[in-house]
Amino acid sequence: MKTNFDVIIAHNKQKAEVFLSEIESKNPLFIATIATTETGKIPGVSAAGQNPDFTDFTPPADAELLLLGKCKSIQGVPITPDGIPTPGLITMSALKLANIPVVIANAGCKVSPQVPFIDLGGNSGRDIRTGDSVDNVDKVIERAKVAGEQFAKISDYLVIGESIPGGTTTALGLLSALGVNAAGKVSSTLPVNPHDLKVDVVQAGLKAAGEKFGSLTGNPVKAVSCVGDPMMPALAGLVIGAANHVPVLMAGGTQMTAVLALINALNPEALCNVAIGTTRWVINDATSDIRGIVNQFCNVPILAADLNFGGSKFPGLQIYETGLVKEGVGAGGASIAAMAKMSGAVNKDLLLKAIERNYSVLMSMK
Amino acid sequence: MKTNFDVIIAHNKQKAEVFLSEIESKNPLFIATIATTETGKIPGVSAAGQNPDFTDFTPPADAELLLLGKCKSIQGVPITPDGIPTPGLITMSALKLANIPVVIANAGCKVSPQVPFIDLGGNSGRDIRTGDSVDNVDKVIERAKVAGEQFAKISDYLVIGESIPGGTTTALGLLSALGVNAAGKVSSTLPVNPHDLKVDVVQAGLKAAGEKFGSLTGNPVKAVSCVGDPMMPALAGLVIGAANHVPVLMAGGTQMTAVLALINALNPEALCNVAIGTTRWVINDATSDIRGIVNQFCNVPILAADLNFGGSKFPGLQIYETGLVKEGVGAGGASIAAMAKMSGAVNKDLLLKAIERNYSVLMSMK
Repeated sequence: MKTNFDVIIAHNKQKAEVFLSEIESKNPLFIATIATTETGKIPGVSAAGQNPDFTDFTPPADAELLLLGKCKSIQGVPITPDGIPTPGLITMSALKLANIPVVIANAGCKVSPQVPFIDLGGNSGRDIRTGDSVDNVDKVIERAKVAGEQFAKISDYLVIGESIPGGTTTALGLLSALGVNAAGKVSSTLPVNPHDLKVDVVQAGLKAAGEKFGSLTGNPVKAVSCVGDPMMPALAGLVIGAANHVPVLMAGGTQMTAVLALINALNPEALCNVAIGTTRWVINDATSDIRGIVNQFCNVPILAADLNFGGSKFPGLQIYETGLVKEGVGAGGASIAAMAKMSGAVNKDLLLKAIERNYSVLMSMK
Repeated sequence: MKTNFDVIIAHNKQKAEVFLSEIESKNPLFIATIATTETGKIPGVSAAGQNPDFTDFTPPADAELLLLGKCKSIQGVPITPDGIPTPGLITMSALKLANIPVVIANAGCKVSPQVPFIDLGGNSGRDIRTGDSVDNVDKVIERAKVAGEQFAKISDYLVIGESIPGGTTTALGLLSALGVNAAGKVSSTLPVNPHDLKVDVVQAGLKAAGEKFGSLTGNPVKAVSCVGDPMMPALAGLVIGAANHVPVLMAGGTQMTAVLALINALNPEALCNVAIGTTRWVINDATSDIRGIVNQFCNVPILAADLNFGGSKFPGLQIYETGLVKEGVGAGGASIAAMAKMSGAVNKDLLLKAIERNYSVLMSMK
């Protein structure tokens, strides 16, 4: 169903409406949680970068794009092998249009962004096929909680997104370890969702860790350590620290369901004050099933920005309508927050115009 | 003169009153800018730590105290060789009492704090006697500006303090390089202000850099690189980034005059929206002269929290009345902000009670 804004309620109508009314006209803070992993470099897993090693630069470049309006770690902006620009372009455009402040939370990047960032004490992640993918999970959760509490004091609500290549594969890893059936349900940036590859990678990781589906339900910290990624403890800690005080919009697609499952295992009451904010492309995606994952363990509402690039004059943006990319860098949540902050004065048409303007400026810089 | 709060107007009455009225009942964000240097380890220069190497742990421990209410990098709290607790205890008590949010800006520490912090791309500082004390000055200023702009969006005003051992010696260094006469005018944590030692250290630094008093007036970035400390570019950048949008209370003693001089050289218009917030102990100090430094190049107002620990039941706090420590970790500015936020419902008596309570809890943890 549609709302007063160009936002689709995709799941749990009643709670979603309450959440939307709570954030209308309010001043959010957007936090981009960035990390990189070796999992993201497994051939065929991610399209976030023109080649596997390029994925080390994608999250820092996204961070720079949000804060500076342009990238420093790379020329131009991150693009997929098909030439599609990072969804960070949507995020940046939405945040600028509504003058929403941005903080970068570095959860563990191989290459540090060339902008100020919050260090949460994490490291870049290893390949989950080792069964030992993430360091300092406990420590990062604790530090992120402290940061989440402070940020809750200086904003009406938080919007927290992610940029981590290969994130849906590690999401499948964590969900599987926690006993949530997500095989065939996680999303992908790629034209053909490589479900079999993801399942194989996760199976290898669980096996290497001496674990199996659901065997770490009682030990969520270990589940992240074995087959998760560094974004998860950081984002979960930020949500847990903040959600006692203010609403939190978790800005992302199926990756956020893994973070939800982690929060559900660590501190389920935090979920009362949380919604997922994503894009129309994710909720309408036939190759993934965000509702089918969430429904297994909680009733958090799902909102989706009703973005449509079909009418864009730029082929690089039109292509979003074919189901590529879909989401990332909190694009959907940032769009929802921009529309809610401006009480609808920002709508999807205005947003597309801003995105096109920024796209054209950034492409001319290359 | 006194105001409605327990705040003394120490300099530039008219502008100070306007500033105070602008911040009354408003919601600030407190930023603690931390760094360490080898200058701080020169015997006799600093009392911020029980021995020179301990100074590496003082700023991280102060950061932890502000965010967690206790330290992690050290047992208990940082104390001087005389057993006086860190002024961070005052800061922490004031911020808690008024529920003021805190962010740690790491400008360059040898030991990272065990709490979330903003990384501004700086390194720990070398001994200024090398004439080459600070890395990445330009980069840190640029990043700090970006951070200051974002933080200005999420708070009514900023209060920015520092924790850097040996900071008055490097302050004398930068002021001298910029042609401000500060010899004999900078403050000290120690019972006897070692002015001669500081002058000798600064002279050695200028000589090693091939510079002399005032020779870097036209090159403030180089002045910091040669004889400054890493806190300076970070704090100056934060102020410059924020002061276009919101008032900024620079929370500290004579160290802040060096930052003021740097801002004055880089971006003087930022000073229109700035005040210094310090303590009664600094403005009444017979061994230093904060007004005499500021007056040489700008007319920024100076406010001082009218703290008085003479009536405290704890000798470790009473001793502040003998002129030791005086200021640090933004103690004065945080106290002013707490009183202004609560429109006087927090006064110096209530603040002392809170400080005593926290002191007693922290001492019992040792």
